[in-house]
Amino acid sequence: MNEIVSRDKLLASTAVGRKLYQPYVAAKWGLKNHWYPALYSHELAEGSFGNMTICGVPILLRREDGIVHAIEDRCAHRGVKMSIKPHCFKKGTVTCWYHGFTYGLADGELKTIIAAPDDPLIGNLAIDTYPVSEKYGIIFVFIGDRDFTPTPPLEQDLPEPLARDYPYYAANLTDENVITLGIHRSGNANWRLACENGFDPGHVLIHWKSPLVYASNRAVALGSRPLSDKALRFYEEENGPKGVMNMTAPDENGDYHYERVFENKELGIKAKGTGGPTFSRTSMWLPGVLRVENFPMRGVSLYEWYVPATDKTYEYWEMMTFPYSSEEEKAEIIDRYENYLKNMVFHGFNDDDLWAREAMQPFYENDVGFDEEKLGSMDAVIVNWRKLVARHARGIQTPPKELGQTRGRR
Amino acid sequence: MNEIVSRDKLLASTAVGRKLYQPYVAAKWGLKNHWYPALYSHELAEGSFGNMTICGVPILLRREDGIVHAIEDRCAHRGVKMSIKPHCFKKGTVTCWYHGFTYGLADGELKTIIAAPDDPLIGNLAIDTYPVSEKYGIIFVFIGDRDFTPTPPLEQDLPEPLARDYPYYAANLTDENVITLGIHRSGNANWRLACENGFDPGHVLIHWKSPLVYASNRAVALGSRPLSDKALRFYEEENGPKGVMNMTAPDENGDYHYERVFENKELGIKAKGTGGPTFSRTSMWLPGVLRVENFPMRGVSLYEWYVPATDKTYEYWEMMTFPYSSEEEKAEIIDRYENYLKNMVFHGFNDDDLWAREAMQPFYENDVGFDEEKLGSMDAVIVNWRKLVARHARGIQTPPKELGQTRGRR
Amino acid sequence: MNEIVSRDKLLASTAVGRKLYQPYVAAKWGLKNHWYPALYSHELAEGSFGNMTICGVPILLRREDGIVHAIEDRCAHRGVKMSIKPHCFKKGTVTCWYHGFTYGLADGELKTIIAAPDDPLIGNLAIDTYPVSEKYGIIFVFIGDRDFTPTPPLEQDLPEPLARDYPYYAANLTDENVITLGIHRSGNANWRLACENGFDPGHVLIHWKSPLVYASNRAVALGSRPLSDKALRFYEEENGPKGVMNMTAPDENGDYHYERVFENKELGIKAKGTGGPTFSRTSMWLPGVLRVENFPMRGVSLYEWYVPATDKTYEYWEMMTFPYSSEEEKAEIIDRYENYLKNMVFHGFNDDDLWAREAMQPFYENDVGFDEEKLGSMDAVIVNWRKLVARHARGIQTPPKELGQTRGRR
Repeated sequence: MNEIVSRDKLLASTAVGRKLYQPYVAAKWGLKNHWYPALYSHELAEGSFGNMTICGVPILLRREDGIVHAIEDRCAHRGVKMSIKPHCFKKGTVTCWYHGFTYGLADGELKTIIAAPDDPLIGNLAIDTYPVSEKYGIIFVFIGDRDFTPTPPLEQDLPEPLARDYPYYAANLTDENVITLGIHRSGNANWRLACENGFDPGHVLIHWKSPLVYASNRAVALGSRPLSDKALRFYEEENGPKGVMNMTAPDENGDYHYERVFENKELGIKAKGTGGPTFSRTSMWLPGVLRVENFPMRGVSLYEWYVPATDKTYEYWEMMTFPYSSEEEKAEIIDRYENYLKNMVFHGFNDDDLWAREAMQPFYENDVGFDEEKLGSMDAVIVNWRKLVARHARGIQTPPKELGQTRGRR
Repeated sequence: MNEIVSRDKLLASTAVGRKLYQPYVAAKWGLKNHWYPALYSHELAEGSFGNMTICGVPILLRREDGIVHAIEDRCAHRGVKMSIKPHCFKKGTVTCWYHGFTYGLADGELKTIIAAPDDPLIGNLAIDTYPVSEKYGIIFVFIGDRDFTPTPPLEQDLPEPLARDYPYYAANLTDENVITLGIHRSGNANWRLACENGFDPGHVLIHWKSPLVYASNRAVALGSRPLSDKALRFYEEENGPKGVMNMTAPDENGDYHYERVFENKELGIKAKGTGGPTFSRTSMWLPGVLRVENFPMRGVSLYEWYVPATDKTYEYWEMMTFPYSSEEEKAEIIDRYENYLKNMVFHGFNDDDLWAREAMQPFYENDVGFDEEKLGSMDAVIVNWRKLVARHARGIQTPPKELGQTRGRR
Repeated sequence: MNEIVSRDKLLASTAVGRKLYQPYVAAKWGLKNHWYPALYSHELAEGSFGNMTICGVPILLRREDGIVHAIEDRCAHRGVKMSIKPHCFKKGTVTCWYHGFTYGLADGELKTIIAAPDDPLIGNLAIDTYPVSEKYGIIFVFIGDRDFTPTPPLEQDLPEPLARDYPYYAANLTDENVITLGIHRSGNANWRLACENGFDPGHVLIHWKSPLVYASNRAVALGSRPLSDKALRFYEEENGPKGVMNMTAPDENGDYHYERVFENKELGIKAKGTGGPTFSRTSMWLPGVLRVENFPMRGVSLYEWYVPATDKTYEYWEMMTFPYSSEEEKAEIIDRYENYLKNMVFHGFNDDDLWAREAMQPFYENDVGFDEEKLGSMDAVIVNWRKLVARHARGIQTPPKELGQTRGRR
């Protein structure tokens, strides 16, 4: 936590707008030189291939002897995706299905060509490879410039784990004795709209009558109002994760900095459910990771990644981290997740976010929305998130060349 | 009726072409500051919402205490369509499903925000509202500039009702003791191509073997030739509707100004059916309304609107106005319409117009058609319609900004 | 055969690349002033219409008294495709379904208009017509400039028939006592990518485990390596077909100029099947015709055309020419083709080519691939094909005007 901005500053910032975060507006294809989840570990069996597109870059994944390799999913020869029909004829290599160009998984170098083993291209040509870090049941890939070294540790791109004595602590993905379970799927919106929806304190009206509210009898607020300059807490330590937290739970002193609104008398609308607040707390982290602590229940964390695929689509990652203290409890959690929470949280609740993000896409698709949107006091956190990205992004991804513009790296 | 042009003038006009009606060529997104049908009255029940896109403008409709309100279907905050899930928590307002922005239906002003009732945007922000006129079973909306006042009466944008002693009189939409029944649906062509197909005296060849021709045993001509400068009658009175009529029925003196062609001996083609002519008479009116008198039978009028939705789609309105003299007759008309005429006229006949308009779209999509078309003598009415629009349109709609160009109003 | 390039020259040429064949890169819409197959003869019955789009030009076909006419499939009046519902009311003419514009099939001239037989446009307006040559069971159409005369003979645009004493002779489409059987279908790639896949000696890896290989127990090589400057043979006689042949079969002296690679020991991959080589031999000819001699069996020729339809699609023609010496043998060939070879060769083998071409399309769609591809020694024939096209194409087709660019002819 580095900086606390004043409420006036918060509000003012919504007016100055776009000029203050131009790099964010430019980041239609995502942030480069960052870590992104590519697949869950269980999705890539030993000896198999997988693939994913991140920030417009096609990635081919392969697991060998447990180790995951990530390599550009485009043969240098004629530009085809190798993942259409990937071959591995020799350990440590991938062979393109088309003309037998065979690359080293570790260095991307052209090792041989099936029917032209003396071709002068061999040894003189390489496709990109990407650093991989497999942790917490997830295969993360570092998407960025070849000359961006050293590769920052994965943990700089994960939400900061909070200490067990932090007020309203919930389990961290990186803790011991936790289990993380989730899904991923494709969404039709730019990744920035997905982020902004995710931790927007005003958007919760869309969940007003969510099945999860009925199931838990626990009210979801109709929205939240920042009460003071302490509503937002910024995380900007030099070697730490960069993020901004909505202080929707009481702080170290038991003080409240957001008012959760459960009723608007003028309009005669009330939140559903009678249960008390869970003090869930949202925070957003570069390069686009949401954490919701104490959701869907006290002590559990929901994590969401909004991974840029193209400029109009993102891969939506949804997972929950549960603490457990015994194998029996762990088995019970898995059972409850598979049979109830997966459907109730990801579909009964998050599905509404999916279409809400999609609904913003036309307005923002050609950047008109960034000029014409009318942000209010509840949007302070969004403006501050945009500025945070502008301050700390390690790079702005340029569009794939095939789409008519110059791409930085290639 | 103001002007009668000479046949020479008619023919000549087809050659000079595009220069004479440049505003028409520019009107890809329709004419602004005009009245358009949005929904049939029966499509918007008390207390319900509806929506329609007209001239690229998304419109949200709501009926309260019988009165219909039309408001911009885009929340000022993040640009989403409120019609995705419209809320009304308090009479006279609509609340956006996303962040609870609540607008007055009458003035479009931001009245409150559910969870931010003290937001400075409140009272300082408005979305557009649109004049509504509900008549003849139709909800009409005036699409145009906020500062275009006073709003012209609806009747200036409806076909001129002809007097009962007008030769070959047929029932007017605006008459007493008539019933109007119809449908609307979406078509894949620019609205101008839809208009031009509608009252084009040469296009009727497409109906040569229409089921309706077999059902009625009444020949549809293979086409019509203007015989004199009296073939077209223009309606351009200052405060009246602006239109042009094909004088395909005998005039006040019993004179004929069009020859209906029922046979071409050189080609050996004859119209189907042996019944005599019905003297149906077509006319086209700003902002794109067709009237066909004495069709599908003597005394009945067919009305068609071609309402611009986008630059490539239009809403196709089809309705028939029947006179009746008793409640029994009215009930019989409804019965006959529901069980026979609706299908026979709109599908058995008009479906051919639907694909004919679509067939022109590629040639005109990038305006190439306006330069390269080869108009003949039968197209005099089309050229004169284009010029009429150029003379009398109250404004040319500019494309929605999100599509990359400046829109006039917003 | 005119020129034999040295192996050094072959390899060097792959490096200089794009500059040497700029016209080829420009030929996204195909080569104009060439003959293309439009339909098989059996697809156009007496008195019927057909249609096909070639090099972006919509073509309407009609057979009358056995003679096939090809005419522009776009009415000059309003630009619609007449093939949507073509009428013939009088021999030698086609009448547009929309307004009765009636054109002469032989000269494209506007002969009459159904309901306006005295229109001044009549006799003063013409649409394009195209030379037709119906031979070998195929209707060929010459697509090009109206003023490109004289029309070259069809045979200049067919693969050169080889003499019966040519080494490893296979039946020619143009021979006596042969039967040619085939299909055509649409493919989603630019026609140049389809060509390049077709006779690329390195692409055969995609057929490694083709059902045809299992059925015939005859190995398909994993690829082929040019051994000397005699690997390619060029056909560039002034009045002859222009083509380039992979000398994958022994030459007149029994010498081999390609090594077929059946195994790569480093990678541990072997070709399937134990049968000896068939000495099939590929060659590619302007304007985009592949011939594979001795495929799928000795003595038979496979012909493939890759006819540009749009810039992103081609019509894929696949046919086999079989020699026969008696009517019984002919009947047996037809039986075997219909029940076995059609499916096994075109689907069990060529289907893999279909998706392989499609896989290249994104990389080349905006010409990026032509700059960024990395061609190797096996690609000498591709580079030489591109240069051959650059030397001998009779014209480069310009895009249809409706798509926003000037088209050469219209």
